[in-house]
Amino acid sequence: MNMRPPPPKRVLGGVFIPTVTLAHGGGGKAMKDLIDDVFISAFAGAAPEVLEDQARFDLTMLATHGDRLAFTTDSFVVDPLFFPGGDIGKLAVYGTVNDLAVGGAKPLYLSCAVVIEEGMQVETLRRIALSMAEAVREAGVSIVTGDTKVVQRGACDKIFITTTGIGVIRPGLELGIDHVTPGDAILVNGLLGDHGAAILCARGDMELETSIESDCAALHGLIEVLLAAAPGTRCIRDATRGGVATVLNEIANASGVSIEIDEALTPLREEVRGFCEILGLDPLYLANEGKIVVVVPPEESAAALAALSGHALGQGSSIIGHAVRGEAGRVTMQTVFGGRRIVDMLVGEQLPRIC
Amino acid sequence: MNMRPPPPKRVLGGVFIPTVTLAHGGGGKAMKDLIDDVFISAFAGAAPEVLEDQARFDLTMLATHGDRLAFTTDSFVVDPLFFPGGDIGKLAVYGTVNDLAVGGAKPLYLSCAVVIEEGMQVETLRRIALSMAEAVREAGVSIVTGDTKVVQRGACDKIFITTTGIGVIRPGLELGIDHVTPGDAILVNGLLGDHGAAILCARGDMELETSIESDCAALHGLIEVLLAAAPGTRCIRDATRGGVATVLNEIANASGVSIEIDEALTPLREEVRGFCEILGLDPLYLANEGKIVVVVPPEESAAALAALSGHALGQGSSIIGHAVRGEAGRVTMQTVFGGRRIVDMLVGEQLPRIC
Repeated sequence: MNMRPPPPKRVLGGVFIPTVTLAHGGGGKAMKDLIDDVFISAFAGAAPEVLEDQARFDLTMLATHGDRLAFTTDSFVVDPLFFPGGDIGKLAVYGTVNDLAVGGAKPLYLSCAVVIEEGMQVETLRRIALSMAEAVREAGVSIVTGDTKVVQRGACDKIFITTTGIGVIRPGLELGIDHVTPGDAILVNGLLGDHGAAILCARGDMELETSIESDCAALHGLIEVLLAAAPGTRCIRDATRGGVATVLNEIANASGVSIEIDEALTPLREEVRGFCEILGLDPLYLANEGKIVVVVPPEESAAALAALSGHALGQGSSIIGHAVRGEAGRVTMQTVFGGRRIVDMLVGEQLPRIC
Repeated sequence: MNMRPPPPKRVLGGVFIPTVTLAHGGGGKAMKDLIDDVFISAFAGAAPEVLEDQARFDLTMLATHGDRLAFTTDSFVVDPLFFPGGDIGKLAVYGTVNDLAVGGAKPLYLSCAVVIEEGMQVETLRRIALSMAEAVREAGVSIVTGDTKVVQRGACDKIFITTTGIGVIRPGLELGIDHVTPGDAILVNGLLGDHGAAILCARGDMELETSIESDCAALHGLIEVLLAAAPGTRCIRDATRGGVATVLNEIANASGVSIEIDEALTPLREEVRGFCEILGLDPLYLANEGKIVVVVPPEESAAALAALSGHALGQGSSIIGHAVRGEAGRVTMQTVFGGRRIVDMLVGEQLPRIC
């Protein structure tokens, strides 16, 4: 007979405590134990021996990667914490890595601040920390400083994570949503709306069964390949909250151009299309966590499309439209029925707590 | 008769909306209006014309200030939002400025990520943003990037703010809690426990009326003066959550020394002492938001004390004890009654949501 010993109980500071208590946010011994056991052990290797209140690193070391620093922050409040294709931890790493990458920066360092609700399962926290650790390894960045707060039951919904990132931009690279001129081509790197649809399904309110998974991914590798192939790239934006429609409106406004896109060229999973039809949602406003809108000058559009399509995270890339002369800030779409409709900025909220 | 026109109603995006709604976190037009009206208008001058997802700045410009970057993050969940001597906005700025400064860094840039509960008064948010703006001006730093999330009613308690800071450390400055050796002097820059006591009183649970105000302040100016006078300073820590007792334990552990302090030399406001006696609290564990623990070599202790005492934020500075040879990590206090008691690390939680 094959007898296996029971798995060892995980302990915090030598005592098995299954849930997070207010003491874990008190700044004392319990907090140190929680941080050591859950976060330091997950981020092993990246963490220094002596914990100071700030991380420190050489400017000369940074300067070998570029000449400008990029700095970005995002709070993640996604509900549910775990969903098909990802979880809040992955999202918190990828989201900030992507916000750096779309500015043309090489992502280097992250900070991580968590607000935890009293009573949260320590095992759940551990799963999230391990997922973050995997994501930072994969993205080639390090979490170098952090903070932990615990609030009483009911004062927050399980856990909120704020990550802040530092990256370095190489000399001469100038991306900006105000750099677009008429004639520029507009691309996306694949099927739109998967993240928004996956989260909505995962909430279970709709009683819809689908196999849609979040597209959440770190995009700096893809962007590196793109910028090598299309060095004249005007701007890149990740189409998260507010979806592709919101990004297009921001670009059209900042650059003072009109944008025309073609519904037939807009990549959409059949399931997401159906899902949107049932719920009366517009997929252009659905959030993505692994999709970027790229604007390149016309002479680089073929090279950009080839570069994106050749990358694992660019399957299904497409030139969806162009910037044109016309009313500043106006975005329109040629529909599959032959008409042309205005794609306005999202007014109101399509789906709260999507990221 | 003196007829005054009514004050103009404050509007968001041309419409008067008194409270924050989920739409304000949707990534679309409502969010842009909220950010423009509340945050950009408060942080005016610091904000760029075109809002990108990341701030960018020259490494060469940073390099003129030093050779290493310091990077730190903190979430602020203080309850109540407004308290005698400060508010969550001030705290969020000063806390991160101080976490940079105690590492010897000149604080330069902050990011600010907010999670807001649906239904929060826009005027309250505006007060907080204006308070942050005043604090960054006073501290000489800039908020250069941010994020806004809104969660449904009950999913967070009013507002949580996460600030992350970047600063630069000048060449040759090496502070560390593991640098302390026996004989070193331990100083604090004034009366202890005011912040913790002020928050506890402000909650109103105790029905105690006091005039205690939070000591929250930006300490980088004080620290600059200190480092000029005592260039051999071993380490500096701000005594926030967990109070002076926790900081002393961290130092004793990291440096492998014992620490002996003297109760008679520990500066305490008479009101805080009384407050602690009534409630059975130990003032050494009360949080401070404008107090640092400084360790200097014995030959620099007089210069350090004079430098601290000569600064507006160092009134009441005192040498409270010394590092000594002995059991690593042991902190003891000579009491006013002549005994000696162990000052352990805080076990459990003294007061949740203190910062």
